[in-house]
Amino acid sequence: MVFQKIAILGMGFMGASLAASIRRFGSPDWEIRGFDPLEGRPAWAQSAGIVDCAFSSIKETVEGADLVVSAAPVDHIVGTILEAARHMKQGAILADLGSTRERIETALCEGLPKGAIHAGSHPMAGSEKTGPEHCKDILFVGKWIFLTPGTSSHPALDALEGFWEKLGARVARLGAKEHDQIVATTSHLPHLAAFALANTLPRKWEEFVAGGFRDTTRIAGGAPEIWTPIFDTNRSCVLEALDQYMANLKEWRDALANPGTFEIDKLVKKANETRSRLM
Amino acid sequence: MVFQKIAILGMGFMGASLAASIRRFGSPDWEIRGFDPLEGRPAWAQSAGIVDCAFSSIKETVEGADLVVSAAPVDHIVGTILEAARHMKQGAILADLGSTRERIETALCEGLPKGAIHAGSHPMAGSEKTGPEHCKDILFVGKWIFLTPGTSSHPALDALEGFWEKLGARVARLGAKEHDQIVATTSHLPHLAAFALANTLPRKWEEFVAGGFRDTTRIAGGAPEIWTPIFDTNRSCVLEALDQYMANLKEWRDALANPGTFEIDKLVKKANETRSRLM
Repeated sequence: MVFQKIAILGMGFMGASLAASIRRFGSPDWEIRGFDPLEGRPAWAQSAGIVDCAFSSIKETVEGADLVVSAAPVDHIVGTILEAARHMKQGAILADLGSTRERIETALCEGLPKGAIHAGSHPMAGSEKTGPEHCKDILFVGKWIFLTPGTSSHPALDALEGFWEKLGARVARLGAKEHDQIVATTSHLPHLAAFALANTLPRKWEEFVAGGFRDTTRIAGGAPEIWTPIFDTNRSCVLEALDQYMANLKEWRDALANPGTFEIDKLVKKANETRSRLM
Repeated sequence: MVFQKIAILGMGFMGASLAASIRRFGSPDWEIRGFDPLEGRPAWAQSAGIVDCAFSSIKETVEGADLVVSAAPVDHIVGTILEAARHMKQGAILADLGSTRERIETALCEGLPKGAIHAGSHPMAGSEKTGPEHCKDILFVGKWIFLTPGTSSHPALDALEGFWEKLGARVARLGAKEHDQIVATTSHLPHLAAFALANTLPRKWEEFVAGGFRDTTRIAGGAPEIWTPIFDTNRSCVLEALDQYMANLKEWRDALANPGTFEIDKLVKKANETRSRLM
């Protein structure tokens, strides 16, 4: 099963990067169809050459498509997927790039017509920049795609996995809850830590920051349109990860408040080991 | 006043970068003298061409020098400076690159002979890598040097300021306490936050981290020989900064634990504003 017509709903940074990646790594005869509710974005994507046809309605975009991917912010995914399901051809696959899974999949499980094939496809790749003009055609190369097939075990999922691999990605299949716990720690928590760190800096000292502060807060540039709904839809898992982080900071607090350097040294060395395994 | 002979005590990443920067931006007739207690390091610096003469004792290194700079880890600075002061010529200037100031300056105020001229010169530049082989001759270009002249108001301080500017740096004069408060927030806290974040990641999820986690923990690679003494010598200021950070994380906790997205949105937007001012 190969996808000849691919509809992408949402031409922000992620949707445009997906279109550009298909253009780069897909077959030349694949048709890429792009939609965005923001005026100007579909036309921009077409003039940039990353989509073949640009539309301002979901209905037209998904007509005849074999694969429909929603690249909307997490709080708009369910709406776009349900709308797409009403107009797409039988047997087509629905996917979305949502960063949190449990809420979306529960809603779709209830809302989608029986027999519809849907699978989450969350790329562990992104940018603190927003908008299609920053899109990258190598965004998914070497990156994880978390495939959350929900209750679905349709053979079409193998085709979806092959599709992502063609764009250079690695695929891991996870349950929705497990997914949400993993990304709460590996992605949402570092963002929260960076946002809070940026908010700790008094304005009068901003001119004195160096590379360490800058790198540690790079992702504090993440947009509220993206990040507020992510936190909103993954509250319980993020709270769990945050409590673990605060417990570790409390260990630091105790080490600093008590004499001796043994505990400080131990905490630094443990972090060094993790860091060197990440390299 | 120009420094013709410059002695650098410590040929780690910082000392070697200072030597390399002087080689690149200084006059060709300046003599650079290098010392390190670790066997092999002075000879390496000489064979790499970043020092003119290499020594294995402080006494020989500082003989005839106009400027002596200790680039030792913070817990070895006072020892090297006091040793240097016993052997250097009258009127020479003593400086050190220590990342914390109050403890060092209190100790030197008591230990240095009357009339000795000393000033802290803390560069807001560094690397998570250690060792002279990673040294950079443009390390200080565009970076802040925090000059903490203590009780000294000698005109030689202007010469020291001019020296740093010749290497491309910008100089700010600060009191020791003010300095320690600023770096606790701008440098030591992001390191602590990164160390603690690395320590929050369960090993089984390490393979799933992406760019966000990686960038936010880059400085968690900082070596314990450097960072344990920095935290040890700046405990009270780091504790203050950490408490502020934990209060901000508590705000996040409350925003996640209560319904509504208004508070989350506010915290993200505030961080965005800081971040965009840092760019």
